[in-house]
Amino acid sequence: MSVMRLGYVHVRVTDLDDASRHYEKTLGLQAMGQQGPCRYFKGWDEFDHHSVVIEEGGVGLVKLGMKVSSSDDLARFEANLARFGVTTERMAAGESHKVGEGLRVFLPTGQTLELYTDMEYVGNELGTFNPHAVIRDPRGLTVPRLDHMLIAGEDPALTERMFTECLDFHVSERLITDIESNDLVATWLFAGQTSHDIALIKGEQGKLHHFAFWLEDWQSILRAGDVFAYDDTPVDYGPTRHGITRGTTVYFFDPAGNRNEVFTGSYRCYADTPTITWTMDTFPRALSALQREVNESFLTVFT
Amino acid sequence: MSVMRLGYVHVRVTDLDDASRHYEKTLGLQAMGQQGPCRYFKGWDEFDHHSVVIEEGGVGLVKLGMKVSSSDDLARFEANLARFGVTTERMAAGESHKVGEGLRVFLPTGQTLELYTDMEYVGNELGTFNPHAVIRDPRGLTVPRLDHMLIAGEDPALTERMFTECLDFHVSERLITDIESNDLVATWLFAGQTSHDIALIKGEQGKLHHFAFWLEDWQSILRAGDVFAYDDTPVDYGPTRHGITRGTTVYFFDPAGNRNEVFTGSYRCYADTPTITWTMDTFPRALSALQREVNESFLTVFT
Amino acid sequence: MSVMRLGYVHVRVTDLDDASRHYEKTLGLQAMGQQGPCRYFKGWDEFDHHSVVIEEGGVGLVKLGMKVSSSDDLARFEANLARFGVTTERMAAGESHKVGEGLRVFLPTGQTLELYTDMEYVGNELGTFNPHAVIRDPRGLTVPRLDHMLIAGEDPALTERMFTECLDFHVSERLITDIESNDLVATWLFAGQTSHDIALIKGEQGKLHHFAFWLEDWQSILRAGDVFAYDDTPVDYGPTRHGITRGTTVYFFDPAGNRNEVFTGSYRCYADTPTITWTMDTFPRALSALQREVNESFLTVFT
Amino acid sequence: MSVMRLGYVHVRVTDLDDASRHYEKTLGLQAMGQQGPCRYFKGWDEFDHHSVVIEEGGVGLVKLGMKVSSSDDLARFEANLARFGVTTERMAAGESHKVGEGLRVFLPTGQTLELYTDMEYVGNELGTFNPHAVIRDPRGLTVPRLDHMLIAGEDPALTERMFTECLDFHVSERLITDIESNDLVATWLFAGQTSHDIALIKGEQGKLHHFAFWLEDWQSILRAGDVFAYDDTPVDYGPTRHGITRGTTVYFFDPAGNRNEVFTGSYRCYADTPTITWTMDTFPRALSALQREVNESFLTVFT
Repeated sequence: MSVMRLGYVHVRVTDLDDASRHYEKTLGLQAMGQQGPCRYFKGWDEFDHHSVVIEEGGVGLVKLGMKVSSSDDLARFEANLARFGVTTERMAAGESHKVGEGLRVFLPTGQTLELYTDMEYVGNELGTFNPHAVIRDPRGLTVPRLDHMLIAGEDPALTERMFTECLDFHVSERLITDIESNDLVATWLFAGQTSHDIALIKGEQGKLHHFAFWLEDWQSILRAGDVFAYDDTPVDYGPTRHGITRGTTVYFFDPAGNRNEVFTGSYRCYADTPTITWTMDTFPRALSALQREVNESFLTVFT
Repeated sequence: MSVMRLGYVHVRVTDLDDASRHYEKTLGLQAMGQQGPCRYFKGWDEFDHHSVVIEEGGVGLVKLGMKVSSSDDLARFEANLARFGVTTERMAAGESHKVGEGLRVFLPTGQTLELYTDMEYVGNELGTFNPHAVIRDPRGLTVPRLDHMLIAGEDPALTERMFTECLDFHVSERLITDIESNDLVATWLFAGQTSHDIALIKGEQGKLHHFAFWLEDWQSILRAGDVFAYDDTPVDYGPTRHGITRGTTVYFFDPAGNRNEVFTGSYRCYADTPTITWTMDTFPRALSALQREVNESFLTVFT
Repeated sequence: MSVMRLGYVHVRVTDLDDASRHYEKTLGLQAMGQQGPCRYFKGWDEFDHHSVVIEEGGVGLVKLGMKVSSSDDLARFEANLARFGVTTERMAAGESHKVGEGLRVFLPTGQTLELYTDMEYVGNELGTFNPHAVIRDPRGLTVPRLDHMLIAGEDPALTERMFTECLDFHVSERLITDIESNDLVATWLFAGQTSHDIALIKGEQGKLHHFAFWLEDWQSILRAGDVFAYDDTPVDYGPTRHGITRGTTVYFFDPAGNRNEVFTGSYRCYADTPTITWTMDTFPRALSALQREVNESFLTVFT
Repeated sequence: MSVMRLGYVHVRVTDLDDASRHYEKTLGLQAMGQQGPCRYFKGWDEFDHHSVVIEEGGVGLVKLGMKVSSSDDLARFEANLARFGVTTERMAAGESHKVGEGLRVFLPTGQTLELYTDMEYVGNELGTFNPHAVIRDPRGLTVPRLDHMLIAGEDPALTERMFTECLDFHVSERLITDIESNDLVATWLFAGQTSHDIALIKGEQGKLHHFAFWLEDWQSILRAGDVFAYDDTPVDYGPTRHGITRGTTVYFFDPAGNRNEVFTGSYRCYADTPTITWTMDTFPRALSALQREVNESFLTVFT
């Protein structure tokens, strides 16, 4: 695979200390220091310097990063994107803290995506010599890694085409209005073997719906809830099992109002996995197979 | 213990076939035949003839039954109840299908409770000689047994006193308006070692809020949701973890509109376990530690 | 119920500090202080002062305690035991640290059982006013409570009769050599609603096979294993699901060589639950439905 | 990724009916018909015609298949392998039942690997239009898919080099005798994002240690054990958590004696995930972090 993963999400928060408490104490991420107005965090099973960046001042997405296998891939992507008509610019090493050279892509849906091949290597918390299988002492949700994100924009179909035609992504699932009109409401895209690294939904240009962290299993979702009760973390939706992606999940907010998700289960994708189609008449089950109902805030709150 | 368990719940349903499909195919109870307007069901791990009775015509509770260890206990309860001022009447064997002699108690909250010492023994589905640990093939939710119920009435405190003073129950948890006024909103009572066999809530006299079935664990709650998606079973609330009782749970409706719950986890009670007190200012967490929010139908739909 | 639970297990250990590390750091019990040669521990969900006592010097059982509902029960038990021909003696308050008056019973299988009605109340770690559902931060196995124990002796049938005829216990399961000879190999007894508070096996007089702690679920058994890997705790048997009791389990040793178990699942018992019979030809499945094989140390190591 | 997955495992079995019962009833695979001496099976979540082939007569591996993304990859692999010095031959469409054109590779460790780009598409059991998340009714272990395999040979290092240098695999973990000599005992290789698609162990040339099926979670491992108890499936090792791969697992045998595994958990790999090194002094924990002990048959039985 050429795009390896969603490498980082960079969001604004109203208060750095409040948000740090959330990402470090509630989610259990490792604090990786501050640089200017930003603080950095990583999951216990991540090897690179950070996967979450919070920046003081407001709420909402600043940018996202995806790590690419090689400079050759990066050059190929740059050419593909130019041909596709998407604006890009080269990033120098260090423009983004601890991140090497790369390519900044201005998505048709309005977000900024940074493609890069190097971030400072830190290592996970287990090491690579006769390691243990987990960290001994859970802390908060004990999040091992960032998983995926969902962003909004006016023309998700165009950004979907950009990801598949320029960046080697595949589409696992698509939600359309109905078979006749086939208008795209949302789409789930993967570059590796998970059901999605990024998803796109029709909505306000440039916005973030949520970013999601991986958890081990459904039991960890319950454990997350027990921690939320202590930390008074506002839950937006779930726990449930999604129809789309089959993932089990709970959505919640950081103190600034950015929506987080913890997510697990789902299924394994390959390049030959057929795309699943959903129509809006089954949307409640697509969103939540378990309850088959939709709450208002889930559909209307974007940051 | 003298009252052993909630032995059966008898409810009205609008259509016997629809309801049978729900209790047999969705919940996975064993169908135990029909007698007059009633059909009978039991869980795979129950030994007596039935634990659920459905009767054609309407919705809501007809009566409930609790099995008592001995005739001596029954006689003692009868005397206690007379002294307490609750109306009772003796039941002959067979008045309730497959149920032996007993005592019918008219609860201050308006429901009819049948205390009995014998029901026809059928045996569970594993047998008692070198048995397996579970049934081999799950069917629907694979419910092993009835667990508890929640009923409403104008004076839950009076019925609570009846259960503790006359029938040897203990109170595990109590929800009061506030410390100052100490008005009882709801109360959870146990006779054995589970956190509750019956709970009482202030509300419309004689009504049923829900009856609950035991499941093995939180994983079974997810599995329940997968079955609900297939059977289009309406979910009312959850999955969540209750603050009160610590149980993990999901609420749903049978086709007639009677509320069911599947419930697991919780904690072990003893005669010396102190009563927990909840005040209404923490009600959202008391109901649902995970989400800490209340839905309307959960508070207003009684049958 | 008159006997409420297995209240405490008192064992010898070769080194107090090593054993304390095991019970406090690995199992996650709360250290409750030292008194003379003994240290005391309780689970986070227990209300009384302690459930585990370790005493410096050797290995093996010193005594066990069971808490009884009332002095009336205690007096009745004393009379029953005298009639049965079992030696007892009255215990003064404080003879056992933090324990009130009671009755010391010398079991036919050689162990010493203390029956008592009071132990100093400490409270669990959640409190009883608007409490949380779990402790926020797991520590080791996060053991909530002591569950049951298995002891050996030459005539388990006699001690079984003592428990059922004198102390109101019921028998949930029995393992016999074969149907024809009906010789008792082992027996599981309950006073409340769990499948067993104590079990007896034919073997060396006065010995301990294991004492067991409750865990929440099968997931917690896996978590226990992850902690064992860090703490280098020797595992004796499992994880598996027992045929007998249906419990899921893993056995391990404390640093002195006393066998511990963590146990969950199992089923709910009532006074009318029929006794299950196992014959030795199915012993491998009775012990372990999952693997159906027996390891040597499990059958031969008693302390 | 160019190699997408382990597509099929083809083994010999002593009796087709016995083995079919195992793969269909115990594992819950879908029977896909017979062709000559072979029967075909697939998991409920697999889209291609089969992932398991059993052939009457004996025990042990006949061959394995890996599906490749494109003909271009296949041609590139062919050139790589020729340069590496591994013998290959072109396969015509249909030489392997339902499989398209491909390349047969004779591994240095003695097994036959078939690389192919097409197998007849059948579809999974959920469909791709508004699908459910799981199949409604579990059957046996309800295996969704084949996951990986472990094969033996005299020079695992050479076959490891072949996979990484010719077929774009990466190494997730390596077990060596000790740091000084650095002799390879076993190696785990991945082409996608799972911790391994294939593993190699030093041993008898051309042999099979096991092939493994994916399960959803640790709970499914327990459920597998409950089915094994009914079907009297011999368990070889586990349940446990591996140190290597972190996977949770149980090993068992098909009626012919081929070793199967059900496996879940583990971690997500990327091209930049560093290789973990294990030394033989920690082998018990590497094999089983939970028990840290090795059974004889696990090390000696190859087929």
